[in-house]
Amino acid sequence: MDELEIINRIETSLSRSPLVTLGPADDCAILPSHPAIGLVTTDCLMDGTHFIVSQITARQLANKVLCVNISDILAMGGVPEYLTLSLAIPKSLNPSFVEEFLESFLSLTNTYSIAVAGGDTNFWDGPLVVSINLTGRPIKGQPIRRSGACMNDHIFVTGALGGSLAGHHLDFSPPMELVHELVRQFPITSMIDISDGLATDLRHILKQSKVGAFLIKDALPARDTIQNLSKPEQIKRILSDGEDFEICFTVNSSIAETLLKKYPQLIRIGFITDEDEVIRWSDDKSIVDERGYEHKRKSND
Amino acid sequence: MDELEIINRIETSLSRSPLVTLGPADDCAILPSHPAIGLVTTDCLMDGTHFIVSQITARQLANKVLCVNISDILAMGGVPEYLTLSLAIPKSLNPSFVEEFLESFLSLTNTYSIAVAGGDTNFWDGPLVVSINLTGRPIKGQPIRRSGACMNDHIFVTGALGGSLAGHHLDFSPPMELVHELVRQFPITSMIDISDGLATDLRHILKQSKVGAFLIKDALPARDTIQNLSKPEQIKRILSDGEDFEICFTVNSSIAETLLKKYPQLIRIGFITDEDEVIRWSDDKSIVDERGYEHKRKSND
Repeated sequence: MDELEIINRIETSLSRSPLVTLGPADDCAILPSHPAIGLVTTDCLMDGTHFIVSQITARQLANKVLCVNISDILAMGGVPEYLTLSLAIPKSLNPSFVEEFLESFLSLTNTYSIAVAGGDTNFWDGPLVVSINLTGRPIKGQPIRRSGACMNDHIFVTGALGGSLAGHHLDFSPPMELVHELVRQFPITSMIDISDGLATDLRHILKQSKVGAFLIKDALPARDTIQNLSKPEQIKRILSDGEDFEICFTVNSSIAETLLKKYPQLIRIGFITDEDEVIRWSDDKSIVDERGYEHKRKSND
Repeated sequence: MDELEIINRIETSLSRSPLVTLGPADDCAILPSHPAIGLVTTDCLMDGTHFIVSQITARQLANKVLCVNISDILAMGGVPEYLTLSLAIPKSLNPSFVEEFLESFLSLTNTYSIAVAGGDTNFWDGPLVVSINLTGRPIKGQPIRRSGACMNDHIFVTGALGGSLAGHHLDFSPPMELVHELVRQFPITSMIDISDGLATDLRHILKQSKVGAFLIKDALPARDTIQNLSKPEQIKRILSDGEDFEICFTVNSSIAETLLKKYPQLIRIGFITDEDEVIRWSDDKSIVDERGYEHKRKSND
């Protein structure tokens, strides 16, 4: 694939989507009418910062850049809808990498029913940069915020945590179907995706909701890749590793048992207290002071 | 400004906008309901490719990245509304450049009444990359496409062309007020912004509309910076220089005089023929074979 073939490949994929009224034939893409409130998120992945191009497959890069954005839409109870893709491609990059990236990316957008509305493809002498802007709509009309957690709510996560850097962070799939089912059926009071580590992301909920939390040490679910570590080390990794891309949410205690019965794969890890932004262990009441990735660089993360 | 201050500055600006229901406090920005059809465009400017950071002021860079995107929305008869801004900032870049860029950028978004809905700010060892995703709505409900030009329509441009690289391409303002007035009052049949040179951009209209054009040589408006050149050289530059960011549009001949009387700053440069995609000079009927920037790299340009 030469540069023009790459661009043509992208344009062809754009014009195929039935969700886009007009693709690459004009100054802008045209999207059909949207009566719902809109969600929008953007994420930019850069070689040497967020990935090492020689240590990642094209498919993994496509999966990661798409799924970190889907995870943000999902974390607000949203259905992803439209994206634009901006690429800064090193002139020296193997064209087969670009080709495989595009094929994987377009295949994944099909899997998630996301329409590629537009793009901007550039070639340069710098490192690879892949930037996505993804819009979505709240599946229940109103998005689920971080700010709705209430005293005594129970706290759940959708899957195992920690040790993601062993591979999960490249090959993960956001738990979209599960979260959409949950949002449709249950009054979820707050929700966030776990990207910076459970400790840091739960604190975002606590801060926005002006509440605290007890965590149940024995309930914290460790990913396979850290099962060989000591229990205290596992706990530390679960709280601070990040890049899990599971969803953490809260519901009123009265529906917690119904939820668990219907979705036994959910893990109840604690409950909400009234102690402003403080996390304690439920057994000995000591303060949890672990933190994840705190240097916040995204304006929406 | 250190990295965290830069991020805080962006977040503060986000949360201020009354057009965004929710800014940086959650996984996505929340935008209010939109009954209208949506327009979306994206543009990525890279140091060394689209600008040289040592040869551009921070204000010029802010103006360019914003206005090339506004120009695309305007070219479809749209009002720009929401944007996300992705930055890859070299760690070595003078913080005062970043600070001035942000101040200029936010001031310009205010000027154009555009809400900054989200962003992703990163620091790395690579060159500066600035990427914007801009949405808009068609001011008349339906966007103005490239495909509506009809036989005998008159062709207009909103301002002088050619020689933009002498400075205009960095400091231009899209003719937003004028174009919005025109779109509101007159049935414009096709429209495009002139970014790749009049010859190339007019050909986009001809191709999409399946028509041809006569151009009036003496009517082509030369920018001040090329007035010192010979007439043939001026014509060549007008047709092929690009980066003009004026608007080219067509209307039915019956309203052309009314249009010119009300807006004497408009320039009528020719009219539409039925000769598929062929441009000829109106005086000697010879074929215009000049072309502008043809290697199309944007999926919406």
